[in-house]
Amino acid sequence: MKPISIGICGLGTVGYGSFTVLAKNSAEISRRTGLEIVVSHIATRRIKEGQDVGDVKVSADVFAVAEDPDVDIVLELIGGYDTARELVLRAIANGKHVVTANKALIAVHGNEIFSAAKKKNVVVAYEAAVAGGIPIIKAIREGLSANHIQWLAGIINGTGNFILTEMKEKSSEFSAVLKQAQDLGYAEADPTFDVEGIDAAHKLTILASIAFGIPLQFDKAYTEGISKVTIEDIRYAGELGYRIKHLGIARKSEKGIELRVHPTLISQDNLIANVNGVMNAVMVQGDAVGPTLFYGAGAGAQPTASAVVADVIDVARTLSHPENAIPALAFQEGSLSDISVLPISEIISEYYLRIMARDKAGVLADITEILGDFSINIEAVIQKEPRDHDAHQLLSVIILTDEIQESIMDEAIEKIEALGAVGGKVARIRMDKLED
Amino acid sequence: MKPISIGICGLGTVGYGSFTVLAKNSAEISRRTGLEIVVSHIATRRIKEGQDVGDVKVSADVFAVAEDPDVDIVLELIGGYDTARELVLRAIANGKHVVTANKALIAVHGNEIFSAAKKKNVVVAYEAAVAGGIPIIKAIREGLSANHIQWLAGIINGTGNFILTEMKEKSSEFSAVLKQAQDLGYAEADPTFDVEGIDAAHKLTILASIAFGIPLQFDKAYTEGISKVTIEDIRYAGELGYRIKHLGIARKSEKGIELRVHPTLISQDNLIANVNGVMNAVMVQGDAVGPTLFYGAGAGAQPTASAVVADVIDVARTLSHPENAIPALAFQEGSLSDISVLPISEIISEYYLRIMARDKAGVLADITEILGDFSINIEAVIQKEPRDHDAHQLLSVIILTDEIQESIMDEAIEKIEALGAVGGKVARIRMDKLED
Repeated sequence: MKPISIGICGLGTVGYGSFTVLAKNSAEISRRTGLEIVVSHIATRRIKEGQDVGDVKVSADVFAVAEDPDVDIVLELIGGYDTARELVLRAIANGKHVVTANKALIAVHGNEIFSAAKKKNVVVAYEAAVAGGIPIIKAIREGLSANHIQWLAGIINGTGNFILTEMKEKSSEFSAVLKQAQDLGYAEADPTFDVEGIDAAHKLTILASIAFGIPLQFDKAYTEGISKVTIEDIRYAGELGYRIKHLGIARKSEKGIELRVHPTLISQDNLIANVNGVMNAVMVQGDAVGPTLFYGAGAGAQPTASAVVADVIDVARTLSHPENAIPALAFQEGSLSDISVLPISEIISEYYLRIMARDKAGVLADITEILGDFSINIEAVIQKEPRDHDAHQLLSVIILTDEIQESIMDEAIEKIEALGAVGGKVARIRMDKLED
Repeated sequence: MKPISIGICGLGTVGYGSFTVLAKNSAEISRRTGLEIVVSHIATRRIKEGQDVGDVKVSADVFAVAEDPDVDIVLELIGGYDTARELVLRAIANGKHVVTANKALIAVHGNEIFSAAKKKNVVVAYEAAVAGGIPIIKAIREGLSANHIQWLAGIINGTGNFILTEMKEKSSEFSAVLKQAQDLGYAEADPTFDVEGIDAAHKLTILASIAFGIPLQFDKAYTEGISKVTIEDIRYAGELGYRIKHLGIARKSEKGIELRVHPTLISQDNLIANVNGVMNAVMVQGDAVGPTLFYGAGAGAQPTASAVVADVIDVARTLSHPENAIPALAFQEGSLSDISVLPISEIISEYYLRIMARDKAGVLADITEILGDFSINIEAVIQKEPRDHDAHQLLSVIILTDEIQESIMDEAIEKIEALGAVGGKVARIRMDKLED
């Protein structure tokens, strides 16, 4: 069999990482596959210092790779939306298979891309788009294919997890740790995508689609970042036996699909509560298998390349019979369900509330009365006195509630914020048992 | 396409679990695969109370299923060695694909079985044989296929992990917890396979083979059980920041392959140290991906059925092109490496030693002198005084050492045990950093 020819578009961290993994592990890969896989064409504006691509043909234009008749599999590793979309569609139109690490592209343009690929009977693989080196797409699409997936929850943004871990361990405020993450190269100069949960929502959108067999619906995902989490919240949660993690949660209920990214209190006994630093982990609950967890590096040149190259191997294995490949969104194209994604107001959750109140007799009674009026049960209360007793000082009242629908909690919070003895906004963090 | 026909041999926990998962999730499975998968023949000596197989044909003889011309895929779920081997070889000879959950069969007879399957161009799938519902075979064979796997370590026997977890949490001795595990149905009346590590060694043998591309070599695995672990060891390890877990460890070095099951001290900060109860987890370290961990239920009807049925789906997907299936042992048949498995005396490890010594001045000096003579560095010492001071009482001296070759440690321990002030055998537990 003639060697399988790879074209790499984009020679940044992941592109060059994939090039080096293919090179250094080529013997191991042929031992596994019986195939010879060679990189024959690279598109990059320039070869950076320290990069060595030997005598591989290099083009400045990514479309040159998509048009190269010798290339069997195009690796889209340029990132972004528009050019990446055009590149992938062009490669598909030319009958080439595609491997991409681009979560934004798949979450936003995936339905269009997979439909085009289906028509041309080519494969678009995207393991590296979610949770870096963790083979979570494969685990859900194939490993757990016997299950009705009930929910999944993931720490799927390493930057956010690094920040929350450091805040807890060093008792540093968000802004200080963000600065440190930027200095270490874990966070971008503009950290919005990571800390506001957009990157996680892209990944969650993809996971939910393959878990439940629904189209990609990034616009329906509820997204809340970690920039308002304080070290007080982390500390109080700790006192109550919880950790705060930035989770992407997707859950299927009879009412619809929950699709939400937000800070979440989870029991410190839960394995995922112990996933720290830049590491990622995804829990998946299937009706047969029960709870599972998949852990590993969610970013970085080599871990992401591990997933890109695994996809290359998978695609290479089905090259002669691409119709045998697993469906892109796990379920057959005509079998996707139109079950709706619920607005955040309709989800049901337990809540952690931090209320800043003037140290005045009766304020706790007023708060609990409001919660009682809305039939919100209280699970635990801690009241943190300000340093010296003074009616003008604000004390923190921490309340853990039972399950209640978010829209009702919204109303209750509005009433609590209107109390004369309450200062500022109520901090509200959702809790999750991560049980069925 | 005509329905894919399944024959189930053995209607015990896993057999009936697989039957029910195929039935209850049949709509979800066809939505994923576009295929109809039906159970057409079951072999069981009797349908037990509470089992309902509808109008599926039932035979008392398992070989009737292997000979049934209508059956495409035979599920070998009878367990054991001899009949299972004969059944699987008969099914293969008849051109049928096989799915099995039988770790003992694969670890001991796998080389013969896979070779027969290769000749007949049929697939023998065995995801359920290791770590129950965790798709670890798929993760290593496919998800991490871009990597040179450096090592793996797993909690792959739920009974053993339950016993160690209970010993720690309840401060109960091994024998009491074993009794409790037997009452709960987690341990067999004869618990040898589980507590002496034989079951774990079967699974480790399989994992090592697919990680490193070596033939199955169960007879070379070093196996040490947990029956000698005491609550004192668990407590002292805890004081030093460690947990004791029964790990299967496979590591590739230039000298050869390490293949060993034994109690192991691991840092309590390591995620796998926090895997408790009957749950299983496997860490895999690849050169590109770094450390990964896969967690889930390692046994039970439904979790194991999750893996059996995922294999059925995988096999069904390659039915028309079985030559496209992943190689049974991950690497191409002719590409297995003959790198040797090291005897336990050649491995290098850190050690936890518990030495019972008469409370006599100079005994610690004698012990450290012996260790020094063998160039064994001491990392930490704790000396636990007996309740009242008395030269006849035994105190516990706990020593953590630096890395040293096991054969040298054996000699040092022999000398320590010969000291007049030392009573009984030295308890020795290997430590592992679970780093490269």
